[in-house]
Amino acid sequence: MNLIILFKEDFIEKDIVRIEGRRFEHVLSVHKAEVGQTLKVGLLNGKIGTGYITNMENKMLQMKVNLTDEPPKPLQSQLILAMPRPKVFARILQTATALGIKKIFVIKTWRVQKSYWNSPVLSEESLSKNMILGLEQTKDTILPEVRVVKLFKPFVEDQISSIIEGTIALVAHPIADAMCPYDIKKPTTIAIGPEGGFIEYEIDMLKKHGFTVVGFGNRILKVETAVPYIYGKLY
Amino acid sequence: MNLIILFKEDFIEKDIVRIEGRRFEHVLSVHKAEVGQTLKVGLLNGKIGTGYITNMENKMLQMKVNLTDEPPKPLQSQLILAMPRPKVFARILQTATALGIKKIFVIKTWRVQKSYWNSPVLSEESLSKNMILGLEQTKDTILPEVRVVKLFKPFVEDQISSIIEGTIALVAHPIADAMCPYDIKKPTTIAIGPEGGFIEYEIDMLKKHGFTVVGFGNRILKVETAVPYIYGKLY
Repeated sequence: MNLIILFKEDFIEKDIVRIEGRRFEHVLSVHKAEVGQTLKVGLLNGKIGTGYITNMENKMLQMKVNLTDEPPKPLQSQLILAMPRPKVFARILQTATALGIKKIFVIKTWRVQKSYWNSPVLSEESLSKNMILGLEQTKDTILPEVRVVKLFKPFVEDQISSIIEGTIALVAHPIADAMCPYDIKKPTTIAIGPEGGFIEYEIDMLKKHGFTVVGFGNRILKVETAVPYIYGKLY
Repeated sequence: MNLIILFKEDFIEKDIVRIEGRRFEHVLSVHKAEVGQTLKVGLLNGKIGTGYITNMENKMLQMKVNLTDEPPKPLQSQLILAMPRPKVFARILQTATALGIKKIFVIKTWRVQKSYWNSPVLSEESLSKNMILGLEQTKDTILPEVRVVKLFKPFVEDQISSIIEGTIALVAHPIADAMCPYDIKKPTTIAIGPEGGFIEYEIDMLKKHGFTVVGFGNRILKVETAVPYIYGKLY
């Protein structure tokens, strides 16, 4: 937790917050918080600044906060991710958030197991929890927008053209038409398949709707490795 | 498991192997293996080829193997990694192996918790297990060499100059002298600190011994994200 995310509900006065639970425990055990110490804080979807600990008792702490700085710039990329195993998805959502991605589409493809859609990892509560872990890691405050899309075909046929408008749209696939570019400094849309990859029909559909198929050599990476690997190249 | 790693002990004749246990279970449940099917196999530290299933019974299967191809080229990089939390280390070791890194130094730094060194994750058996998972993922057969280094100072003072000889030596750190380069196509040595980073003294020591301090913007990534992120940039 490199930044403590504050919520509107934490404010008991204009510039005084009271926090307890997970954040309190973390601040106590990792930051060894004491009265008089200053912590890095940020208001969810708002500014970043400092929190001066004025009071600690009964498993809660009180801070006087001063929010002065804008959060870091978002990454100019949207991620389209075939739903991975729920445990892996939780980690990838944290990673994508930490990388600064602000729009994530979680989609169903042929090789995505149906059972994954019943996982509590896709509940509003769990999505928020994992994105907040990502924000805390990377000292950001802007929550990404996650859209869960359960039907591939209508998504690609009816929506994807407008989604990718103004971006370079790339789909990662072992059998590729080009190598993944480096340091492109332009808005992108990146599609990443499930373990086992997209099927040919899906790749053809994406190509038909404006995606370029890119690879990165002859090694097959896990999805959770591929996400930071690709974003390392691109930005 | 995109490739089934075979061991010398699996061979019951010159070109016949018998496998059981984890590999058998995986091949059965994921590959839906049947007699007559051909699987991708590779001999540990040897060639890659095919295994034709001739027999399945009593929780074991027998294959006739034909090893014809060289494994993929190794990545021209050595990784110096401050020991992370054991669970995270297991995943990073799989990732580093999947990326093709063949030499990994696991080191003690100031911010590495002493208790980590007692973890079974550093046993020969666990190291092998995780590296083999990485090889299976990336269709490689060459086991990386892992060296566990418990003292930072003598390692840097006495050994690191010869270790980095002929490579571009980079240490990832938020306060950097340069941005991490892209697509460098040269041998590298990459040093990555623990959660919380290297301390200033350690950075100074590494600089004095030939490392360039590189950063990548104002986001702080977890170690397990930073490893594929950096290698995505470099290769």
